[in-house]
Amino acid sequence: MIDIERANEIAVERMTSARPILTGVASARDVIPGMRDNLLLHAGPPITWDRASGPLRGAIIGALIFEGLATDEASAEALVRSGEVTLEPCHEHDSVGPMAGVTSASMMVNVVENVSGGNRAFCNLNEGYGKVLRYGAYSPEVIAKLRWMNDVLGSVLAEALALTGEGVDMRALLAESLQMGDEGHNRNKAGSILFTAKLAPSIVRTRASKEEIGQVLQFMVDNALIVLNPVMAACKAMADAGHGVEGSTIMTAMARNGTDLGIRVSGLGNRWFTGPSQVPDGLYFPGFTSADANPDIGDSTITETAGIGAFAMAGAPAIVSFVSGTPQDAVNTTLEMYEITTAEHPFFKMPALDFRGTPVGVDIRKVIELGILPRINTGIAHREAGVGQVGAGLALPPVEAFEKALMAYAEMYLA
Amino acid sequence: MIDIERANEIAVERMTSARPILTGVASARDVIPGMRDNLLLHAGPPITWDRASGPLRGAIIGALIFEGLATDEASAEALVRSGEVTLEPCHEHDSVGPMAGVTSASMMVNVVENVSGGNRAFCNLNEGYGKVLRYGAYSPEVIAKLRWMNDVLGSVLAEALALTGEGVDMRALLAESLQMGDEGHNRNKAGSILFTAKLAPSIVRTRASKEEIGQVLQFMVDNALIVLNPVMAACKAMADAGHGVEGSTIMTAMARNGTDLGIRVSGLGNRWFTGPSQVPDGLYFPGFTSADANPDIGDSTITETAGIGAFAMAGAPAIVSFVSGTPQDAVNTTLEMYEITTAEHPFFKMPALDFRGTPVGVDIRKVIELGILPRINTGIAHREAGVGQVGAGLALPPVEAFEKALMAYAEMYLA
Repeated sequence: MIDIERANEIAVERMTSARPILTGVASARDVIPGMRDNLLLHAGPPITWDRASGPLRGAIIGALIFEGLATDEASAEALVRSGEVTLEPCHEHDSVGPMAGVTSASMMVNVVENVSGGNRAFCNLNEGYGKVLRYGAYSPEVIAKLRWMNDVLGSVLAEALALTGEGVDMRALLAESLQMGDEGHNRNKAGSILFTAKLAPSIVRTRASKEEIGQVLQFMVDNALIVLNPVMAACKAMADAGHGVEGSTIMTAMARNGTDLGIRVSGLGNRWFTGPSQVPDGLYFPGFTSADANPDIGDSTITETAGIGAFAMAGAPAIVSFVSGTPQDAVNTTLEMYEITTAEHPFFKMPALDFRGTPVGVDIRKVIELGILPRINTGIAHREAGVGQVGAGLALPPVEAFEKALMAYAEMYLA
Repeated sequence: MIDIERANEIAVERMTSARPILTGVASARDVIPGMRDNLLLHAGPPITWDRASGPLRGAIIGALIFEGLATDEASAEALVRSGEVTLEPCHEHDSVGPMAGVTSASMMVNVVENVSGGNRAFCNLNEGYGKVLRYGAYSPEVIAKLRWMNDVLGSVLAEALALTGEGVDMRALLAESLQMGDEGHNRNKAGSILFTAKLAPSIVRTRASKEEIGQVLQFMVDNALIVLNPVMAACKAMADAGHGVEGSTIMTAMARNGTDLGIRVSGLGNRWFTGPSQVPDGLYFPGFTSADANPDIGDSTITETAGIGAFAMAGAPAIVSFVSGTPQDAVNTTLEMYEITTAEHPFFKMPALDFRGTPVGVDIRKVIELGILPRINTGIAHREAGVGQVGAGLALPPVEAFEKALMAYAEMYLA
């Protein structure tokens, strides 16, 4: 007889006691398990070229151009269709990626170690705003920026992190930024400057020239998302720590490839349970409407999986000016998430709720029983490759994913 | 017949529309009006050596040693008692200073310009934690740190600010930090890292060596109060913009010298109205109690005067772990301050109160009529020179100061 409650306690305890440290920045091929030159990682559950949405296709093309494997859209598409280059989810390689999430072997990635559990997780470097690969842009300036990020930003960060001697404690940084109005997914203003300020003295001590150091600091200061990717890797390391507990019904991954949303469950191995990805409901930038929006995309929902993002909105009332709603809606979102979770995070506290911990550990049974879906704060991508972000808002996963997972659970454990 | 309401509207409108920009860092003697080599500025209303508290005396001794005018306590005291060195309030020289607030001619100070009103305000550089002059410490390491601050930190900041071309918009920075859990007086975590991050690229571009740049950035990153002094100068520039409106009953200064608290009123010229400074009620660091506390000291109440600090606590719930109370107390403090003020700040908005502006413009008539005193968030100094900070808490001004001001108003305008 499976003791589900006990299994879930174990899973969530492992998740919340994980202590993720950003220890380095390195080439994907050198650190990501199973990474190889003809492999592209992408956000969400598995997908083929045929079913891929515009932004994902664009990012695939851009990554192949960046790697020197293709020169244009046609040659890139041919490589993928022929099977010479394969597509696999980031999540299947201990990794996550924002939006399209496409990560190739040469790209520098953040390396996060869960020092209390021993597992590691990876996420590429954040590109900032404007035309960026993660929204499917692949023009020459996009590729040039990726090269600068690899050659200058990545190597400076790698050296600076080594100089700190201890890396950056991402759990402590998140705990602090959640007390400064961030929710860690769509609002990372505080976390990004905490991160930049923490590393700045070490960045200055690298062997890079003053000019390069100035460029790196300017790039970081101008990018209020610079910490998102290390945060995502940290959340992946925390969520993975709770994965693989026999009998547990705790969700340990939720991710979208722009076509499907998939979830994984602690006690159900590495299977994906999917449904159609929804178009978010939110605020659009001037000139855009929901008709321009791609269905929800990206692995950044690892934040909600780990108990932050939309789950921590009560502590981030200023975010409503970005994702829509009122400060009371933000509070209500967090309160609702306590209904479908099993614990309050021991490290992520919200002053606005009298220092209550954020809701963490989504139990798929509660989702189905109560009909309450996990909430997602998200950026909204244009449906065509390379146009970029057109807004931000709130999204929900498809209920099918949870229904399928619960049926699989019944077959596996209750048959 | 004086139209008091209209006069107050004008005063508060000038205060809230002021746009203070940190444009430079320079020697006090070069920029502060009336500064001279045998003058020491201090916090609060005028005071003599005889009536000065321990921390103020210590800071006076330290400043005279720093200037090479004295070598020890006895020679410093003799200089002040003889009148060779005079003491005048910072406020009487367009300046403010935290805690003892002692500022001497050679010290580097922040220069803030109200670009919409034309007035300027000044505040020394923040020394960080531990043994510091502002708490009355004057040991050799305190003096050595002041020299480093003048020679390295101050000159690097001066050059970096010049390199920005535009300075730092302190109103915009405050508006942002108030949405990130700061109240701007005792909690400046967000503001300090915003400030450091904003200046970091320019700091790297100065002519200073990489080693000095590393020292400066490390000092700034490690000091969550680094922005307090520019913020105080900005608040002084805003408050002064509202000063001098005939018939206005708006408080434009509130400051403590550690013995007396004094206020100034827009329509009552440069007169001080004083009463005994109170011992704050708060949380003490381990090993200290209220028996160790000096009465409230410092010009930092310029923040409350300008509509932040305790007045903005509703947006800074995490501060209660420092000054005592619950998040609801913090909300209540702000709500109470709406009772004695005349406006809601158009730029300083609190997401937690549905983006309501902070209460600004204390009307001394309302203070007396309602019996509600302006609230103050403050650090608590040890009563002996040089021991340092022993806690933080909440303080109130003496009601006498407001009674005296209202009587003076009646004599001047209603007789």
